[in-house]
Amino acid sequence: MTYNHSALLIIDMINNFDFEYGPILAKKALRIAEPIKRLKDQFNQRQLPVIFINDHYNLWKADYDKIIDYCRNPYSQPVYERLLPGEKDYFLIKPKHSAFYGTALDTLLHQLKINRLIVTGIAGNICVLFSANDAYMREYTLAIPNDCIASVDDTDNHYALMMMKNVLKADIEPSNHEIYQHYIM
Amino acid sequence: MTYNHSALLIIDMINNFDFEYGPILAKKALRIAEPIKRLKDQFNQRQLPVIFINDHYNLWKADYDKIIDYCRNPYSQPVYERLLPGEKDYFLIKPKHSAFYGTALDTLLHQLKINRLIVTGIAGNICVLFSANDAYMREYTLAIPNDCIASVDDTDNHYALMMMKNVLKADIEPSNHEIYQHYIM
Amino acid sequence: MTYNHSALLIIDMINNFDFEYGPILAKKALRIAEPIKRLKDQFNQRQLPVIFINDHYNLWKADYDKIIDYCRNPYSQPVYERLLPGEKDYFLIKPKHSAFYGTALDTLLHQLKINRLIVTGIAGNICVLFSANDAYMREYTLAIPNDCIASVDDTDNHYALMMMKNVLKADIEPSNHEIYQHYIM
Amino acid sequence: MTYNHSALLIIDMINNFDFEYGPILAKKALRIAEPIKRLKDQFNQRQLPVIFINDHYNLWKADYDKIIDYCRNPYSQPVYERLLPGEKDYFLIKPKHSAFYGTALDTLLHQLKINRLIVTGIAGNICVLFSANDAYMREYTLAIPNDCIASVDDTDNHYALMMMKNVLKADIEPSNHEIYQHYIM
Repeated sequence: MTYNHSALLIIDMINNFDFEYGPILAKKALRIAEPIKRLKDQFNQRQLPVIFINDHYNLWKADYDKIIDYCRNPYSQPVYERLLPGEKDYFLIKPKHSAFYGTALDTLLHQLKINRLIVTGIAGNICVLFSANDAYMREYTLAIPNDCIASVDDTDNHYALMMMKNVLKADIEPSNHEIYQHYIM
Repeated sequence: MTYNHSALLIIDMINNFDFEYGPILAKKALRIAEPIKRLKDQFNQRQLPVIFINDHYNLWKADYDKIIDYCRNPYSQPVYERLLPGEKDYFLIKPKHSAFYGTALDTLLHQLKINRLIVTGIAGNICVLFSANDAYMREYTLAIPNDCIASVDDTDNHYALMMMKNVLKADIEPSNHEIYQHYIM
Repeated sequence: MTYNHSALLIIDMINNFDFEYGPILAKKALRIAEPIKRLKDQFNQRQLPVIFINDHYNLWKADYDKIIDYCRNPYSQPVYERLLPGEKDYFLIKPKHSAFYGTALDTLLHQLKINRLIVTGIAGNICVLFSANDAYMREYTLAIPNDCIASVDDTDNHYALMMMKNVLKADIEPSNHEIYQHYIM
Repeated sequence: MTYNHSALLIIDMINNFDFEYGPILAKKALRIAEPIKRLKDQFNQRQLPVIFINDHYNLWKADYDKIIDYCRNPYSQPVYERLLPGEKDYFLIKPKHSAFYGTALDTLLHQLKINRLIVTGIAGNICVLFSANDAYMREYTLAIPNDCIASVDDTDNHYALMMMKNVLKADIEPSNHEIYQHYIM
């Protein structure tokens, strides 16, 4: 392909953290919300696509307001304050781990002529990892900045990063690394 | 399979009818809204699943309110008055012709243990036909009541019905036919 | 996209014709084998991809020889003599109507950087039509030369052609029309 | 579902081991070939489905003989001697990591009414792991006997097993554990 266009994917950051170790992940999610927000600002400024993709909490409704309300609680509130979809951002729901499974993500990316993805969000060793592999199988070039994903367990998070670097050929440098300037243009 | 569970699929009835021959299809959609509504009432009464699946009008947002607002106009209003998702109905968006392509429909049906579908909506010769084939390839038993689908052109609609009957083995009797009592239980 | 590459798809022409009206379709398949062969020769000469995609006859084996043997009979023999995969042609199997469902076709086309398809084969109103819609939903540009598809019933075949022209925006001129010169380069 | 049927999946054991650390993986593949073979024998005896699913080595041909020939070398030969598809075993090819991506596997499993999978093969931390997640997203119950998968690096293999146990709820006991008697019936 002669084009080289990037999108920013933000996975499951709209979250009620209502599961085992949820409070731990909430704290880590808050920490990565800042660097994700900075990437999002850069994408927004350059009018590059920002795509929130999110669990639907078994509501089975493509209903943004319902999902936001459902997840609003003291754990999610600080993340909400930093990171919610803006008017021009995309918002998709997913029924399972991977952002590509049972969703229109691939169709959206194809229409936008995207061939590179910066993948961010939680949990790094589950939804991010499996979404990244699905992206790799569809032949997207991948970046997963290591300060923009988090998992309940830090060893798991590190292991997922190593795997995405070695097996899925992803860039994993921190989000302020100059390498990402090639993505944001 | 030993189970035998049905769902009612309502395709693209939330519609702005803003396309060539849209006003013609709007009139026909209004006509089929009544029998679809009667089926929906029966499904709702028996707590069987009713699934609205709809074009997203290039909003690329899983946002029910936005889609409803976007489509509200004098053509859609009379249909809205008869047929909108209730609190317990499902609502999914689709990016293309088929209700299965780029959507979580198959996952939802699997979770609900559905193996039979009553497919209704518009346009009969496009989104209904291609959704029906996708359902058939996934080995669902199909019914497409002939008074519950409509197309811009009646010959096209009839041809699509014949095809769904002959190639996809669908029941196509009118919606008040006793055969559907086996579906609604 | 800035590239513009075509592939030739040949659907279900390796066929045992062992179904109702099979002998009728065999006769028609033989008639379209010649123009398909001419297209294939042109694709082969220019080293453009030719992809046979075929039912697997419930063998569930990715085993070319077994499938060829299984289908060999007096009906298929004359088609075989005109149209079998060459050393450099691709050969995929499909479990259902559509060439895209449960197959690696989309992955292959993506690797080959294909964005246009000439679709040929049988039956025009079933596997060809549903494959064409799946290609359209994936945003391929389509041509279905009207002398290169056949159905048991000629009215059905004509109707499928009209649908692919009107709904799927396909070129349907005969295969010797100059329009296809843009595809074969 | 009221049925409870298992299939045995054997991933990428037909392999030319022609990649970095291939010789190391070949040695480990040989070690797991024996317990996989014992499972296969039990499945064959009870006429339960055994499914080989394999990379196609960029041949893009559903051609068993070509793939077997292509991979035959001193590394694969000892594995071949223990573990090749029998007459009644299924053989599918896959273009990417996951056994479900671009393949008819899900369709085959649905036709066979399978809802449980024993997944075996190589590499444990790549194709096995990503196939297992795809199976989990499709709601199959999973077993991955820890003596039936292997990876180049043993730590990676262990980590993948832990992940499949914790995240994908898989049984990972060794293949001679009594738990698998429930699968083979």
